[in-house]
Amino acid sequence: MTTTAEIINKEQLLRHWQGHRFLTRRVIEAFPEKDFFEFTIGGMRPFSSLASELLSIGVPALKSITSGKVSPYTEEGFDLKTKEEYLQKWDKDTEEINQLWAQIPEEDFEKTFNLFGQYEFPIINNVLYFIDNEVHHRGQGYVYLRALGIEPPFFWERW
Amino acid sequence: MTTTAEIINKEQLLRHWQGHRFLTRRVIEAFPEKDFFEFTIGGMRPFSSLASELLSIGVPALKSITSGKVSPYTEEGFDLKTKEEYLQKWDKDTEEINQLWAQIPEEDFEKTFNLFGQYEFPIINNVLYFIDNEVHHRGQGYVYLRALGIEPPFFWERW
Repeated sequence: MTTTAEIINKEQLLRHWQGHRFLTRRVIEAFPEKDFFEFTIGGMRPFSSLASELLSIGVPALKSITSGKVSPYTEEGFDLKTKEEYLQKWDKDTEEINQLWAQIPEEDFEKTFNLFGQYEFPIINNVLYFIDNEVHHRGQGYVYLRALGIEPPFFWERW
Repeated sequence: MTTTAEIINKEQLLRHWQGHRFLTRRVIEAFPEKDFFEFTIGGMRPFSSLASELLSIGVPALKSITSGKVSPYTEEGFDLKTKEEYLQKWDKDTEEINQLWAQIPEEDFEKTFNLFGQYEFPIINNVLYFIDNEVHHRGQGYVYLRALGIEPPFFWERW
């Protein structure tokens, strides 16, 4: 028995994250094609740019963590032109996240990693940050959808 | 040793939640008094109503979990009329959450609890939901602030 019991395990956290990613995918789907790339409020980025950010974090971060190779954050190489291309990339990354996740030993989550050469925190904190960042930006996407007169998916439907 | 290692402990999760609550407090502060109660986009609720929802979840949920008494969700009794009253209530609840959290045994987090007589999930899932819900609504508050021409606090500043 450990003296400080832990309350979330590795599989639960992956499922939690993928549940959020499922919902974000539905938010991408809910946007009209044009608005996905163009609609903004208050000088913020369109939802396609927020989706690019999320895609630039998930798989690249896990690749860096599993390989031990520190690389700077970049959104280069995201030459996605349509919603459909975003959704295909999203689904590809869903699988890749599952595979990369399996390569992180449980005991490594508490170890510090200098993510993107910039965020030197325990891996668990970095992962929680990915999830929070996704929920945060998706919440913004909900406002865009409402402003467009579109009903967003239910927040609690994750599968 | 446990066979499935867990990766987040009880104290870490409380700190994570309170870090988010600290940031939400700063978002409340950032709103002009009038806009906090009146500004909306796309027929959504003003940020004061979203803050009321968060206040109606945190302490009431933990009280219910620690007492074992199932009570329906209610926003009644929130007779807060100014931003300052919201902030005072927020700070009071910060302390109360710390105290109530300490009363939940670590082994209880995996136990199912019928929160508000409506959400029958393991306590850990309910707590993750509180946090996600707060991040989600706060993300909406960021759009309100941007639409008002106000720079929101940095997302990563939690203390």
